[in-house]
Amino acid sequence: MSWHRKHLLDIESLSAEEIVTVLDTALAFKAVGERAIKKVPALRGKTVVNLFVEPSTRTRISFELAEQRLSADIVNFSAEASSFKKGETLKDTARNLEALNADFIVMRHGASGAPHFLSRVVEASIINAGDGAHEHPTQALLDAFTIRERKGKITGLNVTILGDILYSRVARSNIWALTKLGAKVTLCGPSTLVPRVFEQMGCRVTHNVDEAIQDADIINLLRIQHERQRKTMFPSINEYTTLFGLNKARLAKTKPDALIMHPGPINRGVEIDSEIADGERSVILDQVTNGLAVRMAVLFLVNGGKGPQEIAAS
Amino acid sequence: MSWHRKHLLDIESLSAEEIVTVLDTALAFKAVGERAIKKVPALRGKTVVNLFVEPSTRTRISFELAEQRLSADIVNFSAEASSFKKGETLKDTARNLEALNADFIVMRHGASGAPHFLSRVVEASIINAGDGAHEHPTQALLDAFTIRERKGKITGLNVTILGDILYSRVARSNIWALTKLGAKVTLCGPSTLVPRVFEQMGCRVTHNVDEAIQDADIINLLRIQHERQRKTMFPSINEYTTLFGLNKARLAKTKPDALIMHPGPINRGVEIDSEIADGERSVILDQVTNGLAVRMAVLFLVNGGKGPQEIAAS
Amino acid sequence: MSWHRKHLLDIESLSAEEIVTVLDTALAFKAVGERAIKKVPALRGKTVVNLFVEPSTRTRISFELAEQRLSADIVNFSAEASSFKKGETLKDTARNLEALNADFIVMRHGASGAPHFLSRVVEASIINAGDGAHEHPTQALLDAFTIRERKGKITGLNVTILGDILYSRVARSNIWALTKLGAKVTLCGPSTLVPRVFEQMGCRVTHNVDEAIQDADIINLLRIQHERQRKTMFPSINEYTTLFGLNKARLAKTKPDALIMHPGPINRGVEIDSEIADGERSVILDQVTNGLAVRMAVLFLVNGGKGPQEIAAS
Repeated sequence: MSWHRKHLLDIESLSAEEIVTVLDTALAFKAVGERAIKKVPALRGKTVVNLFVEPSTRTRISFELAEQRLSADIVNFSAEASSFKKGETLKDTARNLEALNADFIVMRHGASGAPHFLSRVVEASIINAGDGAHEHPTQALLDAFTIRERKGKITGLNVTILGDILYSRVARSNIWALTKLGAKVTLCGPSTLVPRVFEQMGCRVTHNVDEAIQDADIINLLRIQHERQRKTMFPSINEYTTLFGLNKARLAKTKPDALIMHPGPINRGVEIDSEIADGERSVILDQVTNGLAVRMAVLFLVNGGKGPQEIAAS
Repeated sequence: MSWHRKHLLDIESLSAEEIVTVLDTALAFKAVGERAIKKVPALRGKTVVNLFVEPSTRTRISFELAEQRLSADIVNFSAEASSFKKGETLKDTARNLEALNADFIVMRHGASGAPHFLSRVVEASIINAGDGAHEHPTQALLDAFTIRERKGKITGLNVTILGDILYSRVARSNIWALTKLGAKVTLCGPSTLVPRVFEQMGCRVTHNVDEAIQDADIINLLRIQHERQRKTMFPSINEYTTLFGLNKARLAKTKPDALIMHPGPINRGVEIDSEIADGERSVILDQVTNGLAVRMAVLFLVNGGKGPQEIAAS
Repeated sequence: MSWHRKHLLDIESLSAEEIVTVLDTALAFKAVGERAIKKVPALRGKTVVNLFVEPSTRTRISFELAEQRLSADIVNFSAEASSFKKGETLKDTARNLEALNADFIVMRHGASGAPHFLSRVVEASIINAGDGAHEHPTQALLDAFTIRERKGKITGLNVTILGDILYSRVARSNIWALTKLGAKVTLCGPSTLVPRVFEQMGCRVTHNVDEAIQDADIINLLRIQHERQRKTMFPSINEYTTLFGLNKARLAKTKPDALIMHPGPINRGVEIDSEIADGERSVILDQVTNGLAVRMAVLFLVNGGKGPQEIAAS
């Protein structure tokens, strides 16, 4: 049990032991979420600012609920309704939030490295809720939690991540977490979105979906973001679905106990068939539930919390 | 005193006894709203999601205050800032909210039947805050509460609802509640907006305003929604005001103790004259105050609360 | 120690003694903000509505945190998401909020005098968070608090306010507060923005920046609002910066212990050089911190709170 960090900026700089500390702490918080009164006083009187410069619904709500259950005071600050429009710099915004005695800044930003920058200019704890195409550390932690919960371990498992790897902060954070914890990671998708350079992160890269899924214990499907400009990356959504979408025929070729994951929101009929998303091998909704526990754990730990014993006693 | 429902989806399926249980429970909560500390711990540690897919200010604020006074944790989820924009289905959104341990989903939606659909696919309690042109059950309950509070009873009263009945969920829910509780309901407005088919719901239909108001104990004026496309339904707002607006001359023809109701926001000078809206026979602001008590009662009851004795003791 | 007001509408109508009561009360609340648990139960069970008809981030967040730390129930009501769009009047909106048992309405509005109007038509306490070009009383109180904190007194100090005075509610409230407390106020800026008529408020008016700053103990720089239509008021932002911007050369001509203030958000390189904004004579972030304490004090006092002794005991 070890955690001495003030910030959670990325997975890259964490040790395997630190990741396991988050997962163990999250386990205790998951039990809190199953109580009739889902609340602990750990952050009472502390102020959390949710600074979402890039829009988000799911991650923001998950963090907000985590903060409420820790009894924190919460301020939501979104880009649209902010001084950013008046030309204020990110640094000034953050220092102003700190001058309001913010203890924690949970931050999503379109620029890679923005949370790292903030952590150097303010005293508050910074928690990265997704920065550009760089990292989304709490997503990787909740994914690891879900795998460990269902498989009993992570070491030695074959994990395949399928989709747009190149632009995905979820993929990057997952690769760091899974390789540190001893899983073997395979990346698959169109060659334009899954370049060979990822082999340098210790992954296997393949553009053949059958090869990618046949030995997988876990298949993590990333969202095809057709709302963004991906036009030049693959010919069409239909072609992506035909070549890489997880359908019944492909599922039949996987190991019978392979689990299906997805960070959501899912595109039914695009990267995944509806019946697979809702099937018994899907752990997509477990991921959502576990995300709340993991985010409570992260806030608790960066606040100096000392782990499960303290939570159980609260 | 009887309530065994997990959801509040509509008035149509409630018994008169269930409606009376809500009203009696709301009476106890109205007393809470008059205390110095307007808070009870009934929903402490429970999570309420306000899922407003259609915009609303008044109903949302009323529910939000009701939830705060019951000490619930609250997450607001509006359509504009949501994964809906990314093409997620309502069912997936709801199941994700549930995976975050949401205990209650208070829901407004433009599609009739949306809350009924959700109640079949998630485990959380669903409270309908208005679905399309179908029902707005808490509005009907607060209207019934206000009538009973001022008249001492509902049975046998003549209630006239005046305005756009055809597209009004407020009218539909009121008709169900009032007829179940033994009132005689008259509907009035332009023939395009008040078709004869409503007689099948047990109402009298008339297009003559003098006839509609002369014996009324209660006159409930609906908002003329000039922001929507009602162009083909009546020639002009001015003509509506002339033919159906409640002015001093018309008020003089009503019973001297007839009460004036309106769900708000009012269009002063359109469906109601300013001095009548602010006059001593108007109970429009009582409706707002009572709405808060009724919504506290509904949340309390669907949570398994056992009625006034329990509230008084809290 | 004296406070008997139900509203905080402006500084103009306050006595010096009342202003000092707010500052003394804020001092006790500043200590609360430095505790591990930054919360007192003073407004528990009370409802505060933040009615921001004009957009605001900084002031709204500051009030919202102040309300949370006083344990109030909070409802946020912004113009964009409101019945205002449906044509409801301000009076009707306020009376509806009051019917929901709102105890306090914190209000920002584009029209001068809007809070005064509301205070006459509703029973709730009104706190002016900025009305048109009229007043922004909590800004002036936090500025006075900051000056007193750093200089030990206000009486006899030379305070220079530099920038767009004509359209500034911050300037107006500051002039009232500072002159009541015995400071000598100098106003400076382009002649189109600083008319001689302000001499009638007891200020010195000059359009020569060197003259304005040479004897100043405090230099309060107002934001040049290039997002508004100031085109006709001065030739260009560059010219403003050249003629009135606070740069190193100008700073060298001031008293060595003169403090630099700014209500934020700052335009780095326009009205103030970056290194001065971040320098040791800048108290800009102190102003933000003190704003929270002052707003807690105001809410506490209009609620009938009896001053520092009561806070220390809570």
